[in-house]
Amino acid sequence: MVLSWDKGPSEGKRQKVAKKPKEPKSETESYASLKLIQDAAKRIAPFAKLTPVHTCTSIDDMMSDETDKIEGATVELFFKCETFQKGGAFKFRGAMNSILQLSKADLQKGVVTHSSGNHAGALALAAKTKGIPSYIVVPEGAPQCKLDAIETYGGEITKCEATVPAREAAAARIQETTGATLIPPYNYGPVICGQGTIGLEFMEQVPDLDVVIVPISGGGMISGIATAVKGIKKDCVVIAAEPVGAGAYAADTFESKKRKELVDDLPVPDTIADGLKAKMGSLTWPVVRDKVDAVITVTEDEIVAAMKIIYERLKLVVEPSGAVGLAAAMSTQFKEFNRKNPPWGKISKHKKVGVVLCGGNVDLALLAKLFAP
Amino acid sequence: MVLSWDKGPSEGKRQKVAKKPKEPKSETESYASLKLIQDAAKRIAPFAKLTPVHTCTSIDDMMSDETDKIEGATVELFFKCETFQKGGAFKFRGAMNSILQLSKADLQKGVVTHSSGNHAGALALAAKTKGIPSYIVVPEGAPQCKLDAIETYGGEITKCEATVPAREAAAARIQETTGATLIPPYNYGPVICGQGTIGLEFMEQVPDLDVVIVPISGGGMISGIATAVKGIKKDCVVIAAEPVGAGAYAADTFESKKRKELVDDLPVPDTIADGLKAKMGSLTWPVVRDKVDAVITVTEDEIVAAMKIIYERLKLVVEPSGAVGLAAAMSTQFKEFNRKNPPWGKISKHKKVGVVLCGGNVDLALLAKLFAP
Repeated sequence: MVLSWDKGPSEGKRQKVAKKPKEPKSETESYASLKLIQDAAKRIAPFAKLTPVHTCTSIDDMMSDETDKIEGATVELFFKCETFQKGGAFKFRGAMNSILQLSKADLQKGVVTHSSGNHAGALALAAKTKGIPSYIVVPEGAPQCKLDAIETYGGEITKCEATVPAREAAAARIQETTGATLIPPYNYGPVICGQGTIGLEFMEQVPDLDVVIVPISGGGMISGIATAVKGIKKDCVVIAAEPVGAGAYAADTFESKKRKELVDDLPVPDTIADGLKAKMGSLTWPVVRDKVDAVITVTEDEIVAAMKIIYERLKLVVEPSGAVGLAAAMSTQFKEFNRKNPPWGKISKHKKVGVVLCGGNVDLALLAKLFAP
Repeated sequence: MVLSWDKGPSEGKRQKVAKKPKEPKSETESYASLKLIQDAAKRIAPFAKLTPVHTCTSIDDMMSDETDKIEGATVELFFKCETFQKGGAFKFRGAMNSILQLSKADLQKGVVTHSSGNHAGALALAAKTKGIPSYIVVPEGAPQCKLDAIETYGGEITKCEATVPAREAAAARIQETTGATLIPPYNYGPVICGQGTIGLEFMEQVPDLDVVIVPISGGGMISGIATAVKGIKKDCVVIAAEPVGAGAYAADTFESKKRKELVDDLPVPDTIADGLKAKMGSLTWPVVRDKVDAVITVTEDEIVAAMKIIYERLKLVVEPSGAVGLAAAMSTQFKEFNRKNPPWGKISKHKKVGVVLCGGNVDLALLAKLFAP
């Protein structure tokens, strides 16, 4: 498990970025800004759920030892329950925001995507909500519960090999035949801004958050949330939580942030967090580069331990990806951060930490395996 | 699975009861009235959580077939999530309401109870909240997670044989030594009224409920809820959901209602719903007799099926007892009721049905067993 802290305050960092000629301030603002996210929130309000924030004193207790308590370096966690979002994951926000921006003519032709997971189900559900067709390319090996969801929501499934070229080719064929609009899972402005509404809501629900921890995969969710959160409270720290993988080292966000360039040649992570296997794209990486303050990577054991705590203490069903934020919050790296005077400034010792529980779509058979004594 | 519907409207029934000299109207009102429950709600408000109500369109869809939908005989379920109550179950309400009515002198001596489950943990937590000692007699065979909870909350555990005389003797010894006050798990006015606050909240959250389904064991929860609900909306139907047991027939509430007298010689139910093994007492039976309109009994398979739906669709962790209400709602008996013109009167065909998810304290090892493919 490794940790990367940027050196300066994030505000300073953004200013520095703005000076580079190749990366003008508008590079990300054209597709991911507080204004665009506020617009998205209004757009999806009649359809998406305003998800609740839960707290748990017994988990807070676990977060601090006696020394922490004496020194006042305690932590209060706030869990944003996207598990209760329509379709069981945050993805509905981005899918709905995308569909609602299509023209009447495009709406009728429907939407298409390639995704093994929650984006597919969410797009099918959002399409159903608007009464339009959805075509979903699903790579082999997707969790059964997620396939079932796509079918329940009336999505037309096309199976393909589990490679990016095969997925893209299958989606392109469907686009040609049907004229459907491709709604990518994360590297797409309307999706980023839709997911950003999580950050908007979170800051309304807990205005004095010091830190927000968000699981990262393709980076759509954290790009949106970081843009919203820093747009509202610029000294709120945004941390990405990333699985390091069971086999080969696969923490591409951590590596990209360390090298300050998009690293896309690491292997796909071998992780039970099936929702976190994508890599950042051309639109999400610049936002992550500029607005995410740190990356905490977590092991498979840490993910399972966090899941168990969420089931036992919060009484919430999460999928493995949904527990990655708490796994990061409970890591020694986060603890170290919390006890040090962080370089980005005036954060009180007692911290209010937001954790996004991003999804709850898990096969019960997997739970049986993970929870077996 | 069997079903018992009383013949007349519940209001009429109560009037009939009031005419019997042996059962004056005040028989139950002295310890379970809307006024007492409203007082309890004010008393526990600074300590207990106001639990949320969740809904789920995909479960609503499962509740009605095409004919139901054409005829408008559909059902909308509202889940009262006591799984999020402090201590993970509704029991905290009654325990806290009881402790808050003790004198200063009695408070210092602490409280004692004998319970294998959620009442024990709740009493320990309520005692901890007030900074007083709690002594808990626990029969052998209690779920590990419930024992852990008692310890976490600082309750002093005394183990004993799993028989009622052994439990009572152990509690009596502790009372003698410590002067602690016995807080019974259900057959006790302040406990009944504390649990009744669930009904009060539910009717505020969903004022036009047609039916409320409540799991029954000793009857403390349903006595309180029925008193509150019928005090506010007298034509709201209250249904008890009871496990029939895996082995010998053990549905004592069903039998008691059928025979119109307290039946207490049936075996303890052999059920995974470990929270529903108690029998009604002298205070809860008269309320159940007068204010509960029907009993639906459910099988072990139905309980597990309902649990799975709650995990998969509602994304909520429930213990087996917590799923018994949904099991009853999904039974053919309930469906039959919903399609008939019920004898108790003017209920619309489309029904708003409240289901109390009473607790979420389950060993993960049990989930592993139940969810194994």
